[in-house]
Amino acid sequence: MALISTSEFLGITDADDHGVRHMEVGDRAVGGGRGSLFGGVGLAAGIIGLEDTAAQPAVWATGQYVSTAFPPATLDLEVTLSAVGRTVTQGRVIGSNDGSEIISVLGATGVRPEPARMVGESMPDAPPPEDCIDSERPHEVDSIHDHIDVRMARGMFGFSGAGEPSGDNRTVLWTRFRGVRLDAAALAVMADYSPSALGNSLGRVTFLSSLDNTIRFAEMPSADEADDDWVLLDNRVEFVGNGFGHSSCTMWSRSGRLLAVASQSMTVIVPDVV
Amino acid sequence: MALISTSEFLGITDADDHGVRHMEVGDRAVGGGRGSLFGGVGLAAGIIGLEDTAAQPAVWATGQYVSTAFPPATLDLEVTLSAVGRTVTQGRVIGSNDGSEIISVLGATGVRPEPARMVGESMPDAPPPEDCIDSERPHEVDSIHDHIDVRMARGMFGFSGAGEPSGDNRTVLWTRFRGVRLDAAALAVMADYSPSALGNSLGRVTFLSSLDNTIRFAEMPSADEADDDWVLLDNRVEFVGNGFGHSSCTMWSRSGRLLAVASQSMTVIVPDVV
Repeated sequence: MALISTSEFLGITDADDHGVRHMEVGDRAVGGGRGSLFGGVGLAAGIIGLEDTAAQPAVWATGQYVSTAFPPATLDLEVTLSAVGRTVTQGRVIGSNDGSEIISVLGATGVRPEPARMVGESMPDAPPPEDCIDSERPHEVDSIHDHIDVRMARGMFGFSGAGEPSGDNRTVLWTRFRGVRLDAAALAVMADYSPSALGNSLGRVTFLSSLDNTIRFAEMPSADEADDDWVLLDNRVEFVGNGFGHSSCTMWSRSGRLLAVASQSMTVIVPDVV
Repeated sequence: MALISTSEFLGITDADDHGVRHMEVGDRAVGGGRGSLFGGVGLAAGIIGLEDTAAQPAVWATGQYVSTAFPPATLDLEVTLSAVGRTVTQGRVIGSNDGSEIISVLGATGVRPEPARMVGESMPDAPPPEDCIDSERPHEVDSIHDHIDVRMARGMFGFSGAGEPSGDNRTVLWTRFRGVRLDAAALAVMADYSPSALGNSLGRVTFLSSLDNTIRFAEMPSADEADDDWVLLDNRVEFVGNGFGHSSCTMWSRSGRLLAVASQSMTVIVPDVV
């Protein structure tokens, strides 16, 4: 099967005469439940806008979710390169619908000489995805979740209750974005599954609303990994309190390469608890 | 001694008739070496702008460093509240000098009911700051470093070489912002000492230039901690490669309260290595 980029999967257009890219907010762009734009997709769209405009790979990016977009809607992506240096380009992307801001993305792209290399974290032990528990998240609407497989290697999936709570702040899960290359934007989409660790930590199904997603890219997939193979997420919940939560994850290729480090903050809603 | 807020320490003005706050970029706002605006101070200024405008405590914030400001300069802080909800306010702050953008800050503030609470991480074991090694960073110019003490509890301070490399990706250090309350902005300033862990991981003094700082607030200091006591940073370097680096830290009150989680990406310069 021919693989496509995340940009092709989401149907992001080239820049128009005003330099603005467009994306229809359809089934492939929304999350489950309420059927609104999936946070990770918003960040992915911003990363695509930055990488395409700067013609460099992404180094890091953050997306702030200002308001919710439901289909039918068009996300207009306006890219501004605020600093173009010799090796690094910094920029921002405003994603809006009918002139109303939906997301703000900041980030950098770059190509630099490499004076040193080290990977500080270790891939956690995990059984292969084929031996792990399906997250079995119920899908009330057609959504991006229909295109991404999730298997629990450790802990409970916080949105469905699949698996067993680990008794601590960590879950380990496999994700696969079927038919899509492992590009930076695909990793941004996958990273938005990390907060599923909140329910595991609290020992019960937990809902949340992302305030942001932040991702920092490490090693790129090797040529034979740049397909739609599984990616392992090692998720940590650092804090839940004051009605908010913070979580992070490291993301690993199946062959053990550190692909990215991601984090986010969110509002936390525990069903039946005021 | 009477303690002051970080806003008072930095001399940030109230909003003028156009809603813009101002900060002189003087000794207290710059870092060592080149004497340019210290990244953590830029993020702190944005957090102060968001908190003051929204009249709520910060939940998270990220600052992107677009260009460098050297004294004498005035940082003009323009706050836009992009989404004002019932419990959460989201906004951005553009910090500029003479109309040129220096920093972009995104973040949220809020007050919400608390349906659940958990702290996922643990404070590392560390000797008290009085028994730890002074980071002895040489100060070529008067700077914020003259007001902040740093003591190495584990590993080498990456900008000066004080201490011994830990042989892994982690350093633990104490910081104290003398005479300043432990408010959210103070924590943002302190978090910018976290990348000092890069030199430890590489086993040699290493320089860097921050692309961003991101901070997520957890527990606030208790009343008796809300003074200028020491804060412990548990720093991790996740990745160095492609000329870039990513690091993060958890921040702890001396009495063991998780205050914040921070992260950043940077360009990496190893002296004498091309």
